[in-house]
Amino acid sequence: VTTQTTTAPPTIGVFDSGFGGLTVLRALIERLPRARFAFLGDTARLPYGSKSRRTIARYAAQSAQFLVREQGAEFLVIACNTASALALDAIQDAVTVPVLGVIEPGAAAARQASRTGDVLVIATEATVHSHAYAAACRAHGLRVLEKACPLLVPLVEEGWTDHPLTAEVIRIYLGELRAEAAAQNLHPDTLVLGCTHYPLLRPLIERSVRPGVKVIDSAESAAEAAAQLFNGRATPGCPILSESAAAGADRVGGTSSPAPQTEIHCFATDSVEKFEQMGSRFLERPVGAVELVDLGG
Amino acid sequence: VTTQTTTAPPTIGVFDSGFGGLTVLRALIERLPRARFAFLGDTARLPYGSKSRRTIARYAAQSAQFLVREQGAEFLVIACNTASALALDAIQDAVTVPVLGVIEPGAAAARQASRTGDVLVIATEATVHSHAYAAACRAHGLRVLEKACPLLVPLVEEGWTDHPLTAEVIRIYLGELRAEAAAQNLHPDTLVLGCTHYPLLRPLIERSVRPGVKVIDSAESAAEAAAQLFNGRATPGCPILSESAAAGADRVGGTSSPAPQTEIHCFATDSVEKFEQMGSRFLERPVGAVELVDLGG
Repeated sequence: VTTQTTTAPPTIGVFDSGFGGLTVLRALIERLPRARFAFLGDTARLPYGSKSRRTIARYAAQSAQFLVREQGAEFLVIACNTASALALDAIQDAVTVPVLGVIEPGAAAARQASRTGDVLVIATEATVHSHAYAAACRAHGLRVLEKACPLLVPLVEEGWTDHPLTAEVIRIYLGELRAEAAAQNLHPDTLVLGCTHYPLLRPLIERSVRPGVKVIDSAESAAEAAAQLFNGRATPGCPILSESAAAGADRVGGTSSPAPQTEIHCFATDSVEKFEQMGSRFLERPVGAVELVDLGG
Repeated sequence: VTTQTTTAPPTIGVFDSGFGGLTVLRALIERLPRARFAFLGDTARLPYGSKSRRTIARYAAQSAQFLVREQGAEFLVIACNTASALALDAIQDAVTVPVLGVIEPGAAAARQASRTGDVLVIATEATVHSHAYAAACRAHGLRVLEKACPLLVPLVEEGWTDHPLTAEVIRIYLGELRAEAAAQNLHPDTLVLGCTHYPLLRPLIERSVRPGVKVIDSAESAAEAAAQLFNGRATPGCPILSESAAAGADRVGGTSSPAPQTEIHCFATDSVEKFEQMGSRFLERPVGAVELVDLGG
């Protein structure tokens, strides 16, 4: 007799200020298709990107507690660069389960990708202001230059992900970043997308970087790190985790469709309709019914 | 013996989700230079433009109560199109002082300006979605077409108020609006700026509208309505109010500098530094020290 097949899948809580973090959820589903996912977008209080550390920490801690206490999450992925940059400590203090942010996996992937040791990071104002990527990259022995690109999120949300005007904004931002890098005598060969909205602009961004520059998506990096952590914790009685390694093998070069058994529950603190409508563009599949939750405030 | 000169000036509370409402405050100072102003920017929870009616009403009511209960405001100006559109009733229920929004003054000014009776309104997503301008304009016998322009606020906040790219975004938005108006057989001769950030784009917008189209700034319209309301309430013992009428005479064609005695207190729920730095661009003078307040949530 074995209880293996009747073991309930672990719940992974995924948190963002909005729906950008659904790009992280998409990458997680590819790697851990048999987990149960509870995703919370704190849409009533977005964007975090322009707010202070104190405020972001309070909002993020409340959100994390909802996922752990109300949804039974056994593992949290902070699928929000701003919250990872400014509130990872506050979240870890607020809950007792393991918490993974997107900054450290992004920095580790940059370390693997870069040969010159010089990397560029683009992100929201608050993420850049925190210098969390700079600190994480320097801990990996990299030299780093960060730039806030506050127009990119609104352009993605306007749906202009393949618009010439968006290409021009990217050209301006990356041009300024390259000029600054040259002034500092840096030779960057790697660009980190430090915001979960940016993967939707990846084709335009890749057309705008110099040949040979690698683009690192911190959503992919974080999902990969989460899957490895889960595999590390795998026990023979927990089949979800070992399957993720096998699933990884045929992911190369495309998005695999999620296994039919992947259970996803989405929650938002506001604008459920907007979440349902825009979320599918980030998740690359329908998000299903989104449940409204009230975290107060 | 008269107590006229020692009467404390009345406090006018001015409220916005951010600092855009400082364009309304600027217009108010011009007209009521001897009032005391308490301005609150609910920056911890901005932008309201993408949030739901329920959430906006809760935030706006808390903010209005702060201005009345903590700051002693005897009159409130809701210097936020989204809050005026979605939460004027909720604010009026939450406080006992008179409350003036920006929508009705904007619609009334459009009625005065338009000869064809067809007007266009550009605003945030939530303001347009509420159709508050459409309702107010129709009550004045106007035909109206509204359009959400979600990129304009981020472009203003990026400081690209005189950037060719911003001009191009405006050209695209207004082109779409004109095509839609033509399809509905409208002949608009008036464009209402239904967002307090848009006055900073007025030069670019005026270059992009057809000759003969008048641009109405709802910030100016609301300030004018507030000044008239104050004059209506004026008593011989209240010199502030009667002076505003005289001040109006030399306002034509330029911004008069505020009287030195204008007392302004600015409060924000987050990012005091950013408020102080960006606010002066909207107020066209330094905002002074901004005080951080916690409304909870």
